[in-house]
Amino acid sequence: MRVVKKYGGSSVSTIDKIKNIAIHLSKNKKVGDEIVVVVSAMGKTTDNLMKLANEISLTPDIRELDSLLSTGEQQSISLLSMALKSLDCKSISLTGAQAGIKTTGLHTKNKIESIKTEKIESYLKAGKIVIVAGFQGVNENGDITTLGRGGSDTSAVALAAALRCECEIYTDVPGIYSIDPRVYKKAKKIERISYEEMMEMANLGAGVMETRAVEIGKKYGVKISVGETLGPETGTYICDSSEIIEKKVVTGISISKNVIMVNLENFLVIPKNISIIFSAIAKNGVNVDMISQNEGDNLIGSIGFTCPIADELFLDIALKEVENYIPDIQVIKRSEVVKISLVGIGMISNFGVAAKVFEVLSDIDAKFYQCTTSEISISLIIKIDDTIRVVEKLAEVFSI
Amino acid sequence: MRVVKKYGGSSVSTIDKIKNIAIHLSKNKKVGDEIVVVVSAMGKTTDNLMKLANEISLTPDIRELDSLLSTGEQQSISLLSMALKSLDCKSISLTGAQAGIKTTGLHTKNKIESIKTEKIESYLKAGKIVIVAGFQGVNENGDITTLGRGGSDTSAVALAAALRCECEIYTDVPGIYSIDPRVYKKAKKIERISYEEMMEMANLGAGVMETRAVEIGKKYGVKISVGETLGPETGTYICDSSEIIEKKVVTGISISKNVIMVNLENFLVIPKNISIIFSAIAKNGVNVDMISQNEGDNLIGSIGFTCPIADELFLDIALKEVENYIPDIQVIKRSEVVKISLVGIGMISNFGVAAKVFEVLSDIDAKFYQCTTSEISISLIIKIDDTIRVVEKLAEVFSI
Repeated sequence: MRVVKKYGGSSVSTIDKIKNIAIHLSKNKKVGDEIVVVVSAMGKTTDNLMKLANEISLTPDIRELDSLLSTGEQQSISLLSMALKSLDCKSISLTGAQAGIKTTGLHTKNKIESIKTEKIESYLKAGKIVIVAGFQGVNENGDITTLGRGGSDTSAVALAAALRCECEIYTDVPGIYSIDPRVYKKAKKIERISYEEMMEMANLGAGVMETRAVEIGKKYGVKISVGETLGPETGTYICDSSEIIEKKVVTGISISKNVIMVNLENFLVIPKNISIIFSAIAKNGVNVDMISQNEGDNLIGSIGFTCPIADELFLDIALKEVENYIPDIQVIKRSEVVKISLVGIGMISNFGVAAKVFEVLSDIDAKFYQCTTSEISISLIIKIDDTIRVVEKLAEVFSI
Repeated sequence: MRVVKKYGGSSVSTIDKIKNIAIHLSKNKKVGDEIVVVVSAMGKTTDNLMKLANEISLTPDIRELDSLLSTGEQQSISLLSMALKSLDCKSISLTGAQAGIKTTGLHTKNKIESIKTEKIESYLKAGKIVIVAGFQGVNENGDITTLGRGGSDTSAVALAAALRCECEIYTDVPGIYSIDPRVYKKAKKIERISYEEMMEMANLGAGVMETRAVEIGKKYGVKISVGETLGPETGTYICDSSEIIEKKVVTGISISKNVIMVNLENFLVIPKNISIIFSAIAKNGVNVDMISQNEGDNLIGSIGFTCPIADELFLDIALKEVENYIPDIQVIKRSEVVKISLVGIGMISNFGVAAKVFEVLSDIDAKFYQCTTSEISISLIIKIDDTIRVVEKLAEVFSI
């Protein structure tokens, strides 16, 4: 059996954890098994390297930053391979460059362009467990590159695609839950979820897997499982929707804190003004999410949108610029809100999901400020204090 | 002017020190200057990585160890290049592999085979300060290799040889001293020293520069200077003896603590026994230094040698084996000793240096246990308690 197994930073945060993974791998490898292991940097290594870089500059050169940050994974692969060899288990560590992971794009945000698997294949043929550094590659100039935070998932799924095998992602939770268990204790672990649902969940802030990794999985049909490192249970299986026989209307609810909602009111909703508003916001690098527009009488209307709380400083600058251009505009900013999103591939064939959601909110008298929908999701901005009772009621109604 | 500058680990042990080197380099670089900088890992980084490896195994796999240890220099080059760029000084960091440093041999003890300088040359042409990771390279298999402790000096001198320029080694002392200033306060900084003398000094434990680096310097005629990082003084110049007009009889005295002296007595000094003794010692990996042999009446005689105190455990095993083969042999082990070595290229043309040394020892009634000589050095084993008075007297007599 050929497989790519990925272990995240918290799974390799200490030498003991690395040793335990090595023991597990060496015990379970059967003759003929071809195992590629992708690891992240140990625990807080990347954060600590970032701190060093920031002591030099708050905006360190990104080529050098990539070279610096990539050392974290290079350390963990070497240590894991050492641990395997000390158990007399044949293995070899490969940096992204050594593993043939060619990337392209901006430093710190590279994308994988291709993977030359000859070296990996030859080591697999020799019976070695091949340990590959996640999160990194090499560009056509020979410079070391990184794939951005969470990039190790992307490395793992891309390797599985190139090697035509399944990908197992091991992390510190037993799988993907219908709802964040820290918010809703009765949340259930999802057995199977489609790529599309998983992408919506990741985008919407479920935070278990990188969207890009799931995208690559979908594109190349890589079956992905997500489970707990050395845990007893089977995890969640991410696959094509055709492999999910009973399609639930709502598979999960993701909850995004750290959002700000902005309402702009009392202005002429004409294309010129809309353009002024969103140009100012884009120019200041604010990452706008949910946009909704309402037009009242005489073209006087309102627009609402959300953005990450981290962008608040730049949002304020942008809003000041907008007020200069459109003097009478009224700005309402709300930060005591959360965004909840119901995701389910079954929504495609089930009408009236939104209606049911609104009914639930009405029943429990919970206000929502904004609502947007996609083909397989409904997102709502609600008051932060309402989070638990809204989520509990929705979970009950949609049996998730 | 083209030059290779090397900064050791203690010179880049903090971000502030790295910043200060960057400021110095950016201020002093003139238009047209071609500067290659070789750096070691920050402070105790290599030791700390070694500790991590030893938590996994006391004999970690050496290929993986090389990959692990090499991250130390990769971090320091990235940080120094970031610091330069943040000062608007053009620069680029290169790992050993990126810099084209091809090596061969055993992992952790690789030797530089060749340097493909195209990449460095093109970056120099573009006006960039090129920062190269010391201590590392890549072998023909594409594996990351290291050159052993102190290998950054070797990297720097080899780069200077390949780039046909001088090499400046910056460290935490102002240069090379005639005698370790911690032992003899009146020690003088040497202005010029020949490669040969420097090699003897390094071999004999002066500990300022790697012998291999000096060897390469001699082989390719690389002029080397050794001085204090960002210090005010000019350092010591290591060059061909033809460049040293006034050749001193004794240039320096090196002092090696941590030696053990062994005398084997009362046995038949015949080739078979000698072979038994040194085979047992070699088999146990004991690094033998000074050997002297005396034959008494009827072939009954004695042999003396020294070895590092670190090898004592294996020495004892070897000596037990010897006693099994040669039952009557008498073993005398002395650890309260030091080895002092007088080095000077002028000894070649000055006879009677040994006689003068013995006269000094006799005058101050200091016993010596053993004496060996080379063309440009005389080494003596003396009692540790005699070190200071012997060294002071010799320094006075030979005006060093």
